[in-house]
Amino acid sequence: MADFDNAIERIVAGLEKRNRLLNPMERRVVAFHELGHTIVALALPGTDTVHKVSIIPRGIGALGYTIQRPIEDRYLMTRAELERKMAVLLGGRAAEQVVFGEVSTGAEDDLARVTDIARAMVLRYGMSEALGNVAYDRERTPFLQSNLPMQQERSYSEETAHAVDGEVHSLVEHAFARAIAILERNRALFDRTAAALLKTETLNQPEIDLLKHEISGEPPGSRAPLPSPSGQVAETTGEGQPHPPLPLHQAPDQ
Amino acid sequence: MADFDNAIERIVAGLEKRNRLLNPMERRVVAFHELGHTIVALALPGTDTVHKVSIIPRGIGALGYTIQRPIEDRYLMTRAELERKMAVLLGGRAAEQVVFGEVSTGAEDDLARVTDIARAMVLRYGMSEALGNVAYDRERTPFLQSNLPMQQERSYSEETAHAVDGEVHSLVEHAFARAIAILERNRALFDRTAAALLKTETLNQPEIDLLKHEISGEPPGSRAPLPSPSGQVAETTGEGQPHPPLPLHQAPDQ
Amino acid sequence: MADFDNAIERIVAGLEKRNRLLNPMERRVVAFHELGHTIVALALPGTDTVHKVSIIPRGIGALGYTIQRPIEDRYLMTRAELERKMAVLLGGRAAEQVVFGEVSTGAEDDLARVTDIARAMVLRYGMSEALGNVAYDRERTPFLQSNLPMQQERSYSEETAHAVDGEVHSLVEHAFARAIAILERNRALFDRTAAALLKTETLNQPEIDLLKHEISGEPPGSRAPLPSPSGQVAETTGEGQPHPPLPLHQAPDQ
Amino acid sequence: MADFDNAIERIVAGLEKRNRLLNPMERRVVAFHELGHTIVALALPGTDTVHKVSIIPRGIGALGYTIQRPIEDRYLMTRAELERKMAVLLGGRAAEQVVFGEVSTGAEDDLARVTDIARAMVLRYGMSEALGNVAYDRERTPFLQSNLPMQQERSYSEETAHAVDGEVHSLVEHAFARAIAILERNRALFDRTAAALLKTETLNQPEIDLLKHEISGEPPGSRAPLPSPSGQVAETTGEGQPHPPLPLHQAPDQ
Amino acid sequence: MADFDNAIERIVAGLEKRNRLLNPMERRVVAFHELGHTIVALALPGTDTVHKVSIIPRGIGALGYTIQRPIEDRYLMTRAELERKMAVLLGGRAAEQVVFGEVSTGAEDDLARVTDIARAMVLRYGMSEALGNVAYDRERTPFLQSNLPMQQERSYSEETAHAVDGEVHSLVEHAFARAIAILERNRALFDRTAAALLKTETLNQPEIDLLKHEISGEPPGSRAPLPSPSGQVAETTGEGQPHPPLPLHQAPDQ
Amino acid sequence: MADFDNAIERIVAGLEKRNRLLNPMERRVVAFHELGHTIVALALPGTDTVHKVSIIPRGIGALGYTIQRPIEDRYLMTRAELERKMAVLLGGRAAEQVVFGEVSTGAEDDLARVTDIARAMVLRYGMSEALGNVAYDRERTPFLQSNLPMQQERSYSEETAHAVDGEVHSLVEHAFARAIAILERNRALFDRTAAALLKTETLNQPEIDLLKHEISGEPPGSRAPLPSPSGQVAETTGEGQPHPPLPLHQAPDQ
Repeated sequence: MADFDNAIERIVAGLEKRNRLLNPMERRVVAFHELGHTIVALALPGTDTVHKVSIIPRGIGALGYTIQRPIEDRYLMTRAELERKMAVLLGGRAAEQVVFGEVSTGAEDDLARVTDIARAMVLRYGMSEALGNVAYDRERTPFLQSNLPMQQERSYSEETAHAVDGEVHSLVEHAFARAIAILERNRALFDRTAAALLKTETLNQPEIDLLKHEISGEPPGSRAPLPSPSGQVAETTGEGQPHPPLPLHQAPDQ
Repeated sequence: MADFDNAIERIVAGLEKRNRLLNPMERRVVAFHELGHTIVALALPGTDTVHKVSIIPRGIGALGYTIQRPIEDRYLMTRAELERKMAVLLGGRAAEQVVFGEVSTGAEDDLARVTDIARAMVLRYGMSEALGNVAYDRERTPFLQSNLPMQQERSYSEETAHAVDGEVHSLVEHAFARAIAILERNRALFDRTAAALLKTETLNQPEIDLLKHEISGEPPGSRAPLPSPSGQVAETTGEGQPHPPLPLHQAPDQ
Repeated sequence: MADFDNAIERIVAGLEKRNRLLNPMERRVVAFHELGHTIVALALPGTDTVHKVSIIPRGIGALGYTIQRPIEDRYLMTRAELERKMAVLLGGRAAEQVVFGEVSTGAEDDLARVTDIARAMVLRYGMSEALGNVAYDRERTPFLQSNLPMQQERSYSEETAHAVDGEVHSLVEHAFARAIAILERNRALFDRTAAALLKTETLNQPEIDLLKHEISGEPPGSRAPLPSPSGQVAETTGEGQPHPPLPLHQAPDQ
Repeated sequence: MADFDNAIERIVAGLEKRNRLLNPMERRVVAFHELGHTIVALALPGTDTVHKVSIIPRGIGALGYTIQRPIEDRYLMTRAELERKMAVLLGGRAAEQVVFGEVSTGAEDDLARVTDIARAMVLRYGMSEALGNVAYDRERTPFLQSNLPMQQERSYSEETAHAVDGEVHSLVEHAFARAIAILERNRALFDRTAAALLKTETLNQPEIDLLKHEISGEPPGSRAPLPSPSGQVAETTGEGQPHPPLPLHQAPDQ
Repeated sequence: MADFDNAIERIVAGLEKRNRLLNPMERRVVAFHELGHTIVALALPGTDTVHKVSIIPRGIGALGYTIQRPIEDRYLMTRAELERKMAVLLGGRAAEQVVFGEVSTGAEDDLARVTDIARAMVLRYGMSEALGNVAYDRERTPFLQSNLPMQQERSYSEETAHAVDGEVHSLVEHAFARAIAILERNRALFDRTAAALLKTETLNQPEIDLLKHEISGEPPGSRAPLPSPSGQVAETTGEGQPHPPLPLHQAPDQ
Repeated sequence: MADFDNAIERIVAGLEKRNRLLNPMERRVVAFHELGHTIVALALPGTDTVHKVSIIPRGIGALGYTIQRPIEDRYLMTRAELERKMAVLLGGRAAEQVVFGEVSTGAEDDLARVTDIARAMVLRYGMSEALGNVAYDRERTPFLQSNLPMQQERSYSEETAHAVDGEVHSLVEHAFARAIAILERNRALFDRTAAALLKTETLNQPEIDLLKHEISGEPPGSRAPLPSPSGQVAETTGEGQPHPPLPLHQAPDQ
């Protein structure tokens, strides 16, 4: 099993680069950053399972990594799931803010992915009330672009572009506030686990399972999972009682 | 006949992919989504006949499908027909909203097609009162583009682009509201049929014909079909009495 | 003579496509649409003579056609002639609006041609008072473009673009209102002739000549023809007395 | 001498196309249009000498022509000279407006050339007070463009583009008003000469010299020629007394 | 020495073109234009030494020329030096305005160079207080462009573009006002020297040295040279006492 | 060791170009400019160590240089570190302003690098409160661009572009004010060291170490270093007591 896990890690995170020497400050930032992703993921129902957290540099540019159950076998994502995914992606940046009161360049890729999700929600999935069920953008087909020096001109007006910016900003900042709230609620546990990670360099399934039991999730009502059609909550959430459908864009209760 | 139907399905929806495993929540979303298209189509006069609904995944990306009578032998579409077509396309997204109070990424292609229709109505068919009988855009000729790296610059002003966005948004949201109203009016029938579809995975002509008889269409006056020149209603509508031509963009009565 | 006419029709409208089956509604729309062009052309002095109207589908995309005397041997067009040409082009769309209270996609090409004329009047011919004698645009030379991936950037400001949109819109809507007025003034004749056209599928010179005698043109003063320099009306108009030059953009008297 | 003149005409205006048949109205428009250029040129000091006016169609697209002394041996043009050149170019359009109260497509090339001059004055020669001595644009080098698919992006802001549009519009409309005023002041002479031109089809040097003596130029002070440095008027103007330098953009006295 | 000077002139200004015949007015404009550059250069401290002024046409497009000491061995330019350089470049245009009260197309290249300097000051050298030490633009690398059809899109907003236009306009117009003031202060000397230049066609070092002694520079305080760090004025200026650093963009005292 | 240092210098700054002759003023500007970088770097904790300062021209375009410890082995940069780096880069321009009251073109490259950092902070690293954790831009991949003539269109609205300009401007001007304050606080030391540098042309490690001991850093609280998670200040700063996390964008105490 260890061999198999190793193979997956090689694919996901690249070869170990033990000779890449981070200075002590960088190492601390990386530990809290990766743990930030993990704790937000464990606190939110319906997000991908975390298998391993490591601060051993690997591959190109990866200073640490968090391995979640792959999501390639999902065919649909609800708005709530995308919002939780955004919070997990911003967990690293939120950790830097909460712990150091200062942020670093380490979140660059996370921000790019979060922005891609938020833009797709607004421009392609019709998940913004302000912009509605209009497809303002299409998935790009890079294959065609290699033949045609076609410029994908923006088809909408400046005022719509401004509304898009506002919706994207709001989605991203709500997800960031959610990650911040989860980390602050679990601050002691967070500090304790980071100290362990800085010593062992890796957290595996058993430690992660223990961590999950200690984590305080979001208070009920802050963001409801997708209820089943018959009014019962879907089995993936594990919460005790169903919630009525919430208005979109409701901010967490903090 | 079954063979022939199968052949058409292979072309329309691709080969069956029974090994594509949706999780239970996804399967429920797909069933209500496809049935949403069907019920809106059955409730509106003059839309393409529905032949089959299935939630067996097929081809590339299709998680379910609804087969309507092809419309390639139509040469003209009236404004009212295009509006009904938009409502049918939005029936899937409307079903998710009505049933789950939450929407998913599953409507991406529907939104793109609806937007294409709305933009063509405003920019090419002169079907918006605000923009008038001006052709702001032309059908693209991709053949020419492969030779010329020509950029089709927008020929109109920002203020016109803003008006276009407003008209497109209004057309799409009216069609969405119409689909929502039809599904809410038929909610009990909708839930019952979805339960059946989740069991049998397919609805064929006989079931669909039965469904059609139970469905409550739009109340008279909410959106008139194209009357014949002599004042009598065209035979495709089946409604009892003619309606005077309606002002464009009149909202449904809900 | 019939052979010669046939040859011209083959060139103008393509080969007959009797196997293209329009549904009854489409056929009615096509008949009124084509007759709309014809009646507006017959009602306006100085427009091209109509030779034939047909609702037999031909060539690529032509569901019906109206053959007018070719205008290739004209070297100059006055502003008034271009405005009359626009009204004739919009006669089809106006017919759908007047008769069915509803418009179809059938006018797409007409709108594109009308828009081209209106834009050329404003951008290249200096025929808009608001924009003046400035050439904001030039006739494109596609031959050169095939070598240079040159992008013809708009050379004027957003505010000018907005004024251009306003002038183009105004020119098009005035021409549309003019076509509407002519068709409403001749509504009984219009219905009667359409019934005949739906039976015979074609109107030839004799029928068109008869039609011309029955048509009521625009009331005097609604749009003056180009007067001769000496103050007498040019012989093409056939009206009894000269009119003083009119202010540009005067709306019809309706 | 006739042979030599013929050779120049062949180069300037192309081969005679006597088989190009204009209808009577077009022929009248062409005669007044060409004579409009001539009369404005004869009325303004310091414009190129007119050698011949003809309404025999020639070359590609030329329905008539006015031959002026070539200006290739001029190395500098003053602002006043460019303004006079613009008035001459607009003389054709002005003639249509004055005589027919209606304009035609025949001025398309004139408008393009006038606009080029006005834009160069504002964007390259610093001849607009509002825009000042800034070079907003450069002369294009088409030779380089054939190698580089370089897009000459506008380097200035929307507000500057708006100011440019305003200056260009003002320069063009002032020149147009000037041409109108000259033609109205010489209306009887204009009509008489046009009648002759319609008969003879050509005006040669002797007739043009006679015409020049009868023409009433602009009233003194309406637009001053370039004074010599010592305060005396340059010999090209032929006016009796020097005028003080005028404020730019002063409108004609009409 | 004459041979050497001649060789430099051939390189700088091209071969003599004595057969290019300017008309008398053009010749006068060229003489005052070139002398304008010279007098402004002689009046301002720290500008390149003038070696020769000529109104013999040379090379392509040069109607006259002013040879200054080459500046290729300068590695740094201060803001004040760039402002003086702009005033010298605008000396030709200023001469036309002061002497003829009318400007010509002859300053086209000067305006382009002045604009390039002003834009570089604002966009690349951080020399505008309003725009600050931000590099809004980079020096273009034409070598790379020949491979990539890369479009250098403007990276800043419309409002910044508007501020840039304002700063560039202000820099250019201040330099123009400065040149005007110098020429007006030296008007009699200017006229006298121009008369000589029109006779001899060339001014050489001895005449230019004499001219320099007669010229009245800017009044003290109108634009200070770069002071040395220790508070004494740098030796290039020759002025008697140091001036405190001036606020940027202070207008000349006129 | 000298050989090794020489080799590094050859790589960093190019071969010595002793034959490049700066005039005395330029040499003084270069000395103060380079020393400006050094003094700001020595005054700020956590910036790269300065090894050598030289005013011997080297390589292409380098008139002087400052060698800092390479930073290629850093994997993360905090917001505070990037702000300090910007202040060091602007130290040269600040020196010109403080010492000469006038700036030169010598800071062009520094401004470009500072702007790149500020834009990355706002557009890619989410380090601006106004713009938030949205990735408005991505790192460009020039490799791909060489195949595709793809134009990287700005994906955000004009209003966002305006906000970006404001944030970039604010970041750059704060860093500039910080550099100015440090240089003014150390003015006497600055002048003394510059005099030495102008004599010896080079400052090496021993002189730089002495300089560091004399320099007055920023007053406590003006810009805190990254505190360690446990509340103690990281060892790189050398300051006596920890500071609470500061609000972003707090201006220095001057």
